[in-house]
Amino acid sequence: MTHDSLHRTPLSLLGLGAMGTALARAWLAAGHPVTVWNRTPARAEALAADGAVVADTAAQAVTANTLVVVCLLDDRSVGEVLDGTDLAGRDLVNLTTGTPAEARERAERSRRSGARYLDGGIMAVPPMIGVPESGAHVFYSGSRELLDRHGPTLGVVAGTTYVGADPGFAALHDVALLSAMYGMFAGVAHAFALIRKEDIDPVGFAPLLADWLVAMAPSVHDTAERLRSGDYAKDVVSTLAMQVAGTPTFLRTAEEQGVSTELLSPYFALMRRRLDGGGGAEDHTGVVDLLAR
Amino acid sequence: MTHDSLHRTPLSLLGLGAMGTALARAWLAAGHPVTVWNRTPARAEALAADGAVVADTAAQAVTANTLVVVCLLDDRSVGEVLDGTDLAGRDLVNLTTGTPAEARERAERSRRSGARYLDGGIMAVPPMIGVPESGAHVFYSGSRELLDRHGPTLGVVAGTTYVGADPGFAALHDVALLSAMYGMFAGVAHAFALIRKEDIDPVGFAPLLADWLVAMAPSVHDTAERLRSGDYAKDVVSTLAMQVAGTPTFLRTAEEQGVSTELLSPYFALMRRRLDGGGGAEDHTGVVDLLAR
Repeated sequence: MTHDSLHRTPLSLLGLGAMGTALARAWLAAGHPVTVWNRTPARAEALAADGAVVADTAAQAVTANTLVVVCLLDDRSVGEVLDGTDLAGRDLVNLTTGTPAEARERAERSRRSGARYLDGGIMAVPPMIGVPESGAHVFYSGSRELLDRHGPTLGVVAGTTYVGADPGFAALHDVALLSAMYGMFAGVAHAFALIRKEDIDPVGFAPLLADWLVAMAPSVHDTAERLRSGDYAKDVVSTLAMQVAGTPTFLRTAEEQGVSTELLSPYFALMRRRLDGGGGAEDHTGVVDLLAR
Repeated sequence: MTHDSLHRTPLSLLGLGAMGTALARAWLAAGHPVTVWNRTPARAEALAADGAVVADTAAQAVTANTLVVVCLLDDRSVGEVLDGTDLAGRDLVNLTTGTPAEARERAERSRRSGARYLDGGIMAVPPMIGVPESGAHVFYSGSRELLDRHGPTLGVVAGTTYVGADPGFAALHDVALLSAMYGMFAGVAHAFALIRKEDIDPVGFAPLLADWLVAMAPSVHDTAERLRSGDYAKDVVSTLAMQVAGTPTFLRTAEEQGVSTELLSPYFALMRRRLDGGGGAEDHTGVVDLLAR
């Protein structure tokens, strides 16, 4: 234990997958005393060389410190690992990826066990942890008091963004942003597939594609304003009618280039449904309403 | 005609939809003598007040100037409008949205008619035309000589980006980028749908979503490098196996929130196919190969 660590909040960390290990290393590097536990002990032993205290059982790790961070495979693992531990008086921070309902249920169980609960959704991959300039951040929801108390400690591994008292909101924000990212990845895959058989260097094409996506991303502000106001037809530049009229060119181009339209067609089908429902003068915001049943 | 216009290249413009009208206004505002033609004359007459010369027929418009710009509904309209005009010696710039094959066929027909041909794909909506700070630009392909000769004139309406001698490449770039954008829009729609029934202000959520998409967009450079090298498994942080393992959380969250997975599932299905095909240690680039048959 370094002199520095005397001033740092000690904590326990359960779960040493790639993400848990990155978290442990970042806290250790910043001088926090860290007690670790992992189902298979090899990963914990590797961290012992860096100064981590290795607990033999999850129950011991939970007892060792007030601040208990959990980063496991899934919510089922969290249940199994915490079962039989004494959470009374603990500040439980759950960074395990799960659904909003799982987070809410976990918060309720924690409350009944006498623990305070903060849920976190990590918007980063392990190499970004503990690297402030990486832009890594964690959505937190649940106990605002917990985040205020442990903000400096949690801020060591990634930026902190509080999104509400509902413990499910961190997971909801996490999943919503990652889902949007997969949509973008689907569009990117289709775009690269279109040029695949042509004499076009993908590395030369990439900046055009990246710049375009960056230029179009701010359109989400317009969509958000429309969702808030409920007016999808005010000051529309590209109407749904015009957009749907343009879709055959996209589908025929895919056909010409020998590219499956399976990633493109579902969105076009929803635009068409909204158009058929009378949304021709709107922009594309109405697709959101068709998705949310 | 202003004094200024004496020094500007005169041109003919066929097609005065929203985009054609925006083009005409930008050229007229910059002092270019513009001869316009439209199938229904009302739109042409509106431009006459701004100094446009109105041609009675498409043939007259084509004869009036060496530089002939066409911006019509679709390639079929281009064929109908140019049929019976004398294109010999003309510099034909086709800004009509179409497929790569249509552009190639149009280039070949133009060559046989004695015209030089440049195809353009406009990456902008009409209000961005003639506004340099809007970021509007046009992909051009086909005759490089034509773009060099008329670059200053074409640059009045939007930035110019030459993407190759193959006349189909402008349309291909146009469609590829717009297809990617629709993928992003699909992801964005899913994200907003997820929060739709919660007490989350979409306008407060939008910056988180926009910033995340902007942060993730540069990943296309990594995808491009992998496509060029053919190595999809080198230095992978999030393997396809890990990503596929995470998909149930996304699907269950959608279910919890009452949101259809129709925009998300197709991409997840392709990741799964690639994983089942042995790509578990790769990143997600292999999806491109599954799309391009």
